[in-house]
Amino acid sequence: MRTIIIGGVAGGMSAATRLRRLDESMEIIVLERSGYVSFANCGLPYHVGGVIPERSALLLQTPQSLARRFGLDVRVHHEVIALDPSRKTVTVRPPGAAEPTELTYDALVLAPGATPVQPPIPGIDRALALRDVEDTDALVAATAEARTAVVIGGGFIGVEMAENLVHRGLQVALVEATAQCLAPLDPEMVAPVHATLVERGVDLRLDTAVAAVDATGVTLGNGHRLPADVVIAAIGVRPDSRLAAAAGLEVGERGGIVVDEFCRTSDPAIYAVGDAVVKKDAQDGSDVLVPLANTANLQGRRVADVIAGAGAAVRPVLGTAIVGVFGLQVGSTGWNEKRLRASGRPYRAIHTHPSDHAGYYPGATTIALKLLVDPANDAILGAQGVGTAGVDKRIDIIATAMAGGLRAAELADLELAYAPQFGSAKDPVNMLGFVDENQVRGLSDTVQWHELDAALADGASLIDVRTPGEFAAGSIPGAVLIPVDELRDRIIDLPAGPLVVHCAVGIRGHLAAMLLRQQGREVRNLDGGYRTWAAGMA
Amino acid sequence: MRTIIIGGVAGGMSAATRLRRLDESMEIIVLERSGYVSFANCGLPYHVGGVIPERSALLLQTPQSLARRFGLDVRVHHEVIALDPSRKTVTVRPPGAAEPTELTYDALVLAPGATPVQPPIPGIDRALALRDVEDTDALVAATAEARTAVVIGGGFIGVEMAENLVHRGLQVALVEATAQCLAPLDPEMVAPVHATLVERGVDLRLDTAVAAVDATGVTLGNGHRLPADVVIAAIGVRPDSRLAAAAGLEVGERGGIVVDEFCRTSDPAIYAVGDAVVKKDAQDGSDVLVPLANTANLQGRRVADVIAGAGAAVRPVLGTAIVGVFGLQVGSTGWNEKRLRASGRPYRAIHTHPSDHAGYYPGATTIALKLLVDPANDAILGAQGVGTAGVDKRIDIIATAMAGGLRAAELADLELAYAPQFGSAKDPVNMLGFVDENQVRGLSDTVQWHELDAALADGASLIDVRTPGEFAAGSIPGAVLIPVDELRDRIIDLPAGPLVVHCAVGIRGHLAAMLLRQQGREVRNLDGGYRTWAAGMA
Ligand SMILES: Cc1cc2nc3c(=O)[nH]c(=O)nc-3n(C[C@H](O)[C@H](O)[C@H](O)COP(=O)(O)OP(=O)(O)OC[C@H]3O[C@@H](n4cnc5c(N)ncnc54)[C@H](O)[C@@H]3O)c2cc1C
Ligand SMILES: Cc1cc2nc3c(=O)[nH]c(=O)nc-3n(C[C@H](O)[C@H](O)[C@H](O)COP(=O)(O)OP(=O)(O)OC[C@H]3O[C@@H](n4cnc5c(N)ncnc54)[C@H](O)[C@@H]3O)c2cc1C
Ligand SMILES: CC(C)(COP(=O)(O)OP(=O)(O)OC[C@H]1O[C@@H](n2cnc3c(N)ncnc32)[C@H](O)[C@@H]1OP(=O)(O)O)[C@@H](O)C(=O)NCCC(=O)NCCS
Ligand SMILES: CC(C)(COP(=O)(O)OP(=O)(O)OC[C@H]1O[C@@H](n2cnc3c(N)ncnc32)[C@H](O)[C@@H]1OP(=O)(O)O)[C@@H](O)C(=O)NCCC(=O)NCCS
Repeated sequence: MRTIIIGGVAGGMSAATRLRRLDESMEIIVLERSGYVSFANCGLPYHVGGVIPERSALLLQTPQSLARRFGLDVRVHHEVIALDPSRKTVTVRPPGAAEPTELTYDALVLAPGATPVQPPIPGIDRALALRDVEDTDALVAATAEARTAVVIGGGFIGVEMAENLVHRGLQVALVEATAQCLAPLDPEMVAPVHATLVERGVDLRLDTAVAAVDATGVTLGNGHRLPADVVIAAIGVRPDSRLAAAAGLEVGERGGIVVDEFCRTSDPAIYAVGDAVVKKDAQDGSDVLVPLANTANLQGRRVADVIAGAGAAVRPVLGTAIVGVFGLQVGSTGWNEKRLRASGRPYRAIHTHPSDHAGYYPGATTIALKLLVDPANDAILGAQGVGTAGVDKRIDIIATAMAGGLRAAELADLELAYAPQFGSAKDPVNMLGFVDENQVRGLSDTVQWHELDAALADGASLIDVRTPGEFAAGSIPGAVLIPVDELRDRIIDLPAGPLVVHCAVGIRGHLAAMLLRQQGREVRNLDGGYRTWAAGMA
Repeated sequence: MRTIIIGGVAGGMSAATRLRRLDESMEIIVLERSGYVSFANCGLPYHVGGVIPERSALLLQTPQSLARRFGLDVRVHHEVIALDPSRKTVTVRPPGAAEPTELTYDALVLAPGATPVQPPIPGIDRALALRDVEDTDALVAATAEARTAVVIGGGFIGVEMAENLVHRGLQVALVEATAQCLAPLDPEMVAPVHATLVERGVDLRLDTAVAAVDATGVTLGNGHRLPADVVIAAIGVRPDSRLAAAAGLEVGERGGIVVDEFCRTSDPAIYAVGDAVVKKDAQDGSDVLVPLANTANLQGRRVADVIAGAGAAVRPVLGTAIVGVFGLQVGSTGWNEKRLRASGRPYRAIHTHPSDHAGYYPGATTIALKLLVDPANDAILGAQGVGTAGVDKRIDIIATAMAGGLRAAELADLELAYAPQFGSAKDPVNMLGFVDENQVRGLSDTVQWHELDAALADGASLIDVRTPGEFAAGSIPGAVLIPVDELRDRIIDLPAGPLVVHCAVGIRGHLAAMLLRQQGREVRNLDGGYRTWAAGMA
């Protein structure tokens, strides 16, 4: 029996190695277009930036090492140009050969990944993209003498590239067509990321289109020109389903290869995994594209099991992701508020600003956390985090809680490892559970930063319960200052009618709201306090 | 209505503040024996070591700040000396007063914590303990001019104290009566902790009793003498149930106050929380003492809900804990192998040695991870981790998976946040799931480090599949070297009969075992490889 695998990196090579472990006698051929297999895609930007100085560190395996250890027949510079499912053949172009050759298969795995989106901009051909080792070499060469760069696209890879080009000493502009970078985050969460980019010298252009690229720079939609010795296109990726589509395999609306939960395409002998395929969303089972390495590797391993005769179903995806931005950790899992709102799905949002570890232990920093909850059943719908430490941990804990079907209020009960250098006795994740539980039980009610104007227009009065010093340093227009410690004695100073209270992050506001409710007042706490409001309004 | 709370720190003050938020009109009196409330117990060792330089950082709240913000009546230097449940009174000794006074309550919360165990050693009175701020002041004073110290007891606090006294420049001996420090860990997991202590200059005496303490040092059970300007007793803590017991409340065998899941003692008006109470074990519902801050804080908050009329049950405990040891992170959750063995409960153990983040990204370090699994139903029974980074995250993920009822093999499917500075595309937790899944499916079978001798005595041959270089640097007696990359060609060189294969950590051994099985060989992989074996034999 012969299995052919197209694409020799995350999904493809994971399939190949697992398949070998399961079946010593199978012939396994891996066909890879580029000159490298098993390379660290996710490390490529950091090699361009010099953070990973050794190019060799990116190459986890070679065709030779894979032959020795796994008995794999790995052929680089072998691009597959066609499939024929009826004859079970692939047509491949070996290097230097005049003619393409055909190979037959018993099972075929498509793991061709995704291709960078190339927008229809005049001159875009000059822009470099980053997907493989050759691209990396080209970028290293192009940036060696360069002084200026324009990165088009503020997604994960665009932001990583901007940072890494700054590390290399270039003047970098980052041009993003929408109002924000890093689409998985909601706007109030991404504000500190924007601020960090600007602080670190990136010329950040949001809401800005690129009209044209030419030999010395980029012309923006607003007519401005940015000089650029190097232009990088990082507008996003689309599934590389060209071979599949040409062979008549079913391809989804958004270009992904359609597979069932066993990674089977519409042809019984052909499987597909990784960035190239359509996935099922964990929340609603809808079709989604989630081009991430964890899922690609897992699917690669699982498809080997299926081919070897005993595969488990591949799980639906939450889309858990993280990116580093000049030392900021930016993570998310599940759905964001934008998506919930767009889909008309009801939700509650909770914003907190805890310390990554106990405030009394040196080095504590603040994390901005956001939890999205289904008001009907308290299911966790998603989470986001931004901070300089401990974000990865909290996102992973919440993603695990989601996988385990924990309700949001059950986060209160998680027994997490605590010593002062690692967390808090009430960990930030526990605290999200406390806040949620109060809402579930009807003990507290909140206003979101983007709902505040409407609440005030509807006649609510805004009470700032922080200190005079905090108030003086920046306050919300229209707020009346009554510090929480004076509130009990100054009930009489409060305006009549509904109230919105707020503090810096929500904790004192919570106390104030609990107190005022017991005075019979209709009161809501501004969720996330001044910080979330200010970030949202930034 | 008046609630009196005895003990004003983790459990007690969490109860007080929550109770105030729930009920503005309740009279809440907190009686605290020491001179401080709301202090950071867990930070005390780090203040002694100068890591937390400011003493004031330990004091999160004062009676004044708690009065202002929460309207609490907090009385420090007020030791409660008796309870009378029938009359609903507590007898308290106010500072400076000649006579004790009585206070009546409607509800009473006992949150007196635990007291350091004082072993019956001659001269032990000289030893200092560390439980509150006064103890900390005493230790800071005692160590100011000291050059030598002996710490008795290698538990969490003993090890933290040893480290912090080294930070202060003292020569430190750590004397532990059993064969290992940090009892929650199994011996092969604690080996690197012992090595680190010794490397950092701690004179570590395991399996060593202290026979006597005198004015200038400590005499050991073996007759040796250790000089000691300061002696610290950290033998462990026991629930402070003296008041409860004297008042006729039910006290458990191991000295903890018996409470139901709503923190109610045997008296309907008296509640108890924190280190003083017996908890329910999450695995088997047995009575356990878990003196940790996360649970104390949570119970404090929940008991307030119960008193206010709507409390949820307190969850059983996993005992998730972590401690830093000279930059090593040492964490655990659930049961360890020692306890499983002692209770006769069947289990499978899995040892891995992954990188905390992708090996190709700078700064990656190795974590030792251990997972304990129920062979009957694949439930996760416990986990341990030791390393310099990322241990807290993995322990928390596994503790969350346990709370969510995930099976061990389901760890394979967790979608964790991956970028190379944070983890791996197959995160260490996923990898534990892969290894477990292979065992569940009967694809692989392992030998534990402590079972190897018996396996070899039973006639198995040991094959080391590492490289000649690795073999030369250290090998297991009796092992025959056949590097994995040569294995397919050297099947003929293998001895007949059952085989045990091993590599450095288990990955190449896994491949070798899969390969040899398909040759019809009876083969097991040495779990955790040479590293776990060497740690176990250390
Ligand atoms: C710069 C960069 C940074 C990233 N950072 C992260 C990160 O931090 N975290 C994260 O989770 N994910 C990250 N990703 C995404 C991650 O790398 C992908 O999700 C993952 O590699 C997808 O695996 P795959 O096997 O589907 O495709 P790939 O790993 O892309 O492999 C596909 C391979 O197929 C080959 N191929 C395509 N067509 C053919 C053909 N016709 N014939 C032969 N070979 C063919 C390609 O040359 C390619 O080598 C990053 C990606 C890039 C490019
Ligand atoms: C040095 C040290 C380090 C620690 N490190 C960690 C760690 O890293 N992680 C972790 O999870 N846990 C740690 N702990 C444990 C944690 O501090 C406890 O689990 C937690 O504080 C228990 O809370 P509690 O409210 O039950 O008791 P405590 O917080 O100890 O509070 C009890 C209070 O009651 C008072 N009291 C007792 N009897 C009376 C009386 N009769 N009248 C009036 N007052 C009375 C005491 O003076 C004391 O202040 C540490 C403990 C210590 C001592
Ligand atoms: C490196 C690569 C070839 C994968 O090789 P692999 O052998 O499947 O993976 P690993 O080396 O991580 O080993 C995993 C195997 O070891 C096993 N294993 C791990 N630790 C073990 C231990 N301590 N004991 C026993 N087995 C162990 C796992 O169970 C797994 O085997 P299985 O799949 O049969 O269950 C492939 O992942 C690759 O090409 N990666 C680079 C590209 C990439 O991932 N890019 C995206 C991220 S940058
Ligand atoms: C500090 C101490 C007095 C507790 O005070 P507390 O007010 O209960 O706790 P916090 O300040 O953490 O605030 C938690 C409250 O704020 C709420 N909250 C937190 N973030 C919020 C936000 N963003 N929006 C709204 N509410 C928020 C929580 O829900 C919780 O309120 P609830 O219990 O009514 O649900 C007590 O924990 C203590 O004495 N600690 C020191 C001792 C100790 O813990 N030692 C052991 C570890 S070293």
